[in-house]
Amino acid sequence: MITNETIVALSTPPGIGAIGVIRLSGKDAISITNAVFSGKDLLAQDSHTIHFGLIKDGDIIVDEVLVSLFVAPKSYTKENVVEISCHGSNYIIQQIITLLIRHGASAAKPGEFTLRAFLNGGLDLSQAEAVADLISSDSAAAHQVAMNQLRGGFSNELAVLREQLIHFASMIELELDFAEEDVEFANRDQLQDLINKITLVLNKLIRSFELGNVIKEGINTVIAGRPNAGKSTLLNALLNEDRAIVSEIAGTTRDTIEEVLNINGINFRLIDTAGIREATDTIEAIGVEKTMQKISQSALLVYLFDIVNTTPEEILEDITRLHKPGFPFIAVANKIDLSLTERLQSLDLPSDVRFISISAKENQHIEELKELLYDTAVGDQLSDSHTMVTNIRHVEALQRTREALNSVANGLNNPVTSDFLAMDIKQALYYLGEITGQVTTDDLLENIFSKFCIGK
Amino acid sequence: MITNETIVALSTPPGIGAIGVIRLSGKDAISITNAVFSGKDLLAQDSHTIHFGLIKDGDIIVDEVLVSLFVAPKSYTKENVVEISCHGSNYIIQQIITLLIRHGASAAKPGEFTLRAFLNGGLDLSQAEAVADLISSDSAAAHQVAMNQLRGGFSNELAVLREQLIHFASMIELELDFAEEDVEFANRDQLQDLINKITLVLNKLIRSFELGNVIKEGINTVIAGRPNAGKSTLLNALLNEDRAIVSEIAGTTRDTIEEVLNINGINFRLIDTAGIREATDTIEAIGVEKTMQKISQSALLVYLFDIVNTTPEEILEDITRLHKPGFPFIAVANKIDLSLTERLQSLDLPSDVRFISISAKENQHIEELKELLYDTAVGDQLSDSHTMVTNIRHVEALQRTREALNSVANGLNNPVTSDFLAMDIKQALYYLGEITGQVTTDDLLENIFSKFCIGK
Repeated sequence: MITNETIVALSTPPGIGAIGVIRLSGKDAISITNAVFSGKDLLAQDSHTIHFGLIKDGDIIVDEVLVSLFVAPKSYTKENVVEISCHGSNYIIQQIITLLIRHGASAAKPGEFTLRAFLNGGLDLSQAEAVADLISSDSAAAHQVAMNQLRGGFSNELAVLREQLIHFASMIELELDFAEEDVEFANRDQLQDLINKITLVLNKLIRSFELGNVIKEGINTVIAGRPNAGKSTLLNALLNEDRAIVSEIAGTTRDTIEEVLNINGINFRLIDTAGIREATDTIEAIGVEKTMQKISQSALLVYLFDIVNTTPEEILEDITRLHKPGFPFIAVANKIDLSLTERLQSLDLPSDVRFISISAKENQHIEELKELLYDTAVGDQLSDSHTMVTNIRHVEALQRTREALNSVANGLNNPVTSDFLAMDIKQALYYLGEITGQVTTDDLLENIFSKFCIGK
Repeated sequence: MITNETIVALSTPPGIGAIGVIRLSGKDAISITNAVFSGKDLLAQDSHTIHFGLIKDGDIIVDEVLVSLFVAPKSYTKENVVEISCHGSNYIIQQIITLLIRHGASAAKPGEFTLRAFLNGGLDLSQAEAVADLISSDSAAAHQVAMNQLRGGFSNELAVLREQLIHFASMIELELDFAEEDVEFANRDQLQDLINKITLVLNKLIRSFELGNVIKEGINTVIAGRPNAGKSTLLNALLNEDRAIVSEIAGTTRDTIEEVLNINGINFRLIDTAGIREATDTIEAIGVEKTMQKISQSALLVYLFDIVNTTPEEILEDITRLHKPGFPFIAVANKIDLSLTERLQSLDLPSDVRFISISAKENQHIEELKELLYDTAVGDQLSDSHTMVTNIRHVEALQRTREALNSVANGLNNPVTSDFLAMDIKQALYYLGEITGQVTTDDLLENIFSKFCIGK
């Protein structure tokens, strides 16, 4: 998979800007650049130094540039790396890349710089994946989770588990070598303890995926309720802008509207819906169906009702219809400005339904609602800064590791021979190794790095 | 105009990419960066070195970055400059810029880095303007003209003229000091010679603007002709793609279509037009009017006619209507594949109309047409590599310089006193100085640099 080619790509976003940065990596990165650079001899310069000069195509000056040198192994890819900072014109960038390719460089494939960093031991696979997450992170929480993963937090946690398992695996391998003597080098009780301990960590990591994933992708939050409950007004109040068309006519909102609201660094994807009621026409029926579908795909449901014009019976009926036990659910009484608060006391809500009274129109208790949204979806799960799994590939590997360890535990309870135990432990190690890349296939790498942008 | 503030901006295009570069310039650029950087003490490092470390907001790691240091005066702006190369995420870029502003930096205004480079003597005004031209140049010729200007070619040419004029101005000033003695330190014949010489250079530079401007902006080339002459097919043949909707129905093309064709490094803006004929409906009438308007704004007119279905009389009629003496005009006979070439001989074309026969459909003689377009618009004006003026501000200053020198010449022919001569020479010097920025006003600078992108 690793080649001797020197690769080149634009590493900054395309488009017109003050500067663009072209990056080369590979054995010949410095000599190829040197061949088109006039100013000084780049081959005679130290690592981590910057040099002003001209990029020339024969006699033609292509650009005045700054060249940054990173001599192997002191670079991102652990290879020789050159960064050429040129004027941010597409024409110039194209000319320089074409010139470098003519002098022996190859166009880099998506993610190829980071792939090389991984293959050369600069970072492990989960760290490499964190680079992509980091670039696409758009909230403080997603950023912190990706940064923790890039800094090796997750990898370190896995490394500890792996080491302990490897110790036992080698003991059991030893037993296989001395099979005829029927000795046990690996203490079975200690192995059982270890499996229990590791399974607890795995469970914690797997559970963290649910939150980790919503932190990365944002929390799908459906706002549902009867027509004219004030859903669009609430959306506007939350977003503090006139995003949805607000009207007095019931059934105005037919398309679902999606907006992102950031609360304490977490993105909530607010999904406004058509009112839930018996539809009077076909288009509206489609809207209602879409609402129910959105609700089933959401991670948090906000049920909004108009406290003035809805009877307690109707409210209870709606909640019974929408609420699934254990599923995060917030009931929001709207139009409290016009209302008699005592009506609320009469409602007998399920114990896991959280409740708040607001006025969307008068902007009352909107901040409290935001806090309630955050508490319901995130709670204090972020405060104990444990590692967060955000990648579906990782959680699947963790689940397979858990299954393999489960087989080991079964083998211990219904005594099997050492070679079966060894096989299951190896399987567990294999799945753990997949996450950080001790175990990889070309397909897996292709799949991961092809999603990167070119130049990374 | 120059301030003590340290400015900061993103210098790479916005959007997601592998990396983004944030630039700071000013006295405190290094110390402000140092306050949020952990890795090493940036204040103790050499100029033109690169340092890996973390940007931290208190305990929170914002990003792993590379910091490049340029210590004054060895930088673009001649001030301390820091470039922070971070992961190319909008979230991270925003966080870092906000953090730097919190630590004392100010958000840079458009072009402020280059303005500082100018104010600190790093480049003159025409060179600063060349930076913007260079970034927006999208053809080899435009790029070379901007690069020559950035490298000081134009400035040097003006500097020679200025020096000679300054010599004479000081001689005449001396005469004013000795006014009572009635001596002539400045030789009037030599002054007359110099004015003639400078005027020749000014004429050459002013003339070069016409070509310089089209090189920068592209050459507006209108393709006109009767309905069904094959204009859209010709456009497709020239561009080698199916850009225009080609149909057999006369009057298909109602909106003008604009495409860029690069011939020998020069951009031709090809403007397809509605057919010129009596319009049969209102929409078409608007199209024809638009065509005539486009023709009047073009730099080159290609008149296309169908040699089979147009009579020599009709062709001559069209040419008479469209052709203005001295205005670059090419008559193109289309559909030669079906035709009798001898019909062409019968046409009595004006001597300055250039003529070629092609088949747009069969792709015959299209390359020859391209060469003819280039020859007609550019000719050999580019081969003698003289300086090219591309900026309307420059050409206006050159024209005013010429007028002032004209007054000096008049003063010499109808002898006036030394103080009048001195005034006119100073005026000429003033206008020359405006180009390179020896003479500037805040308004002028504001006008020039506000058109730059932020971060440059």
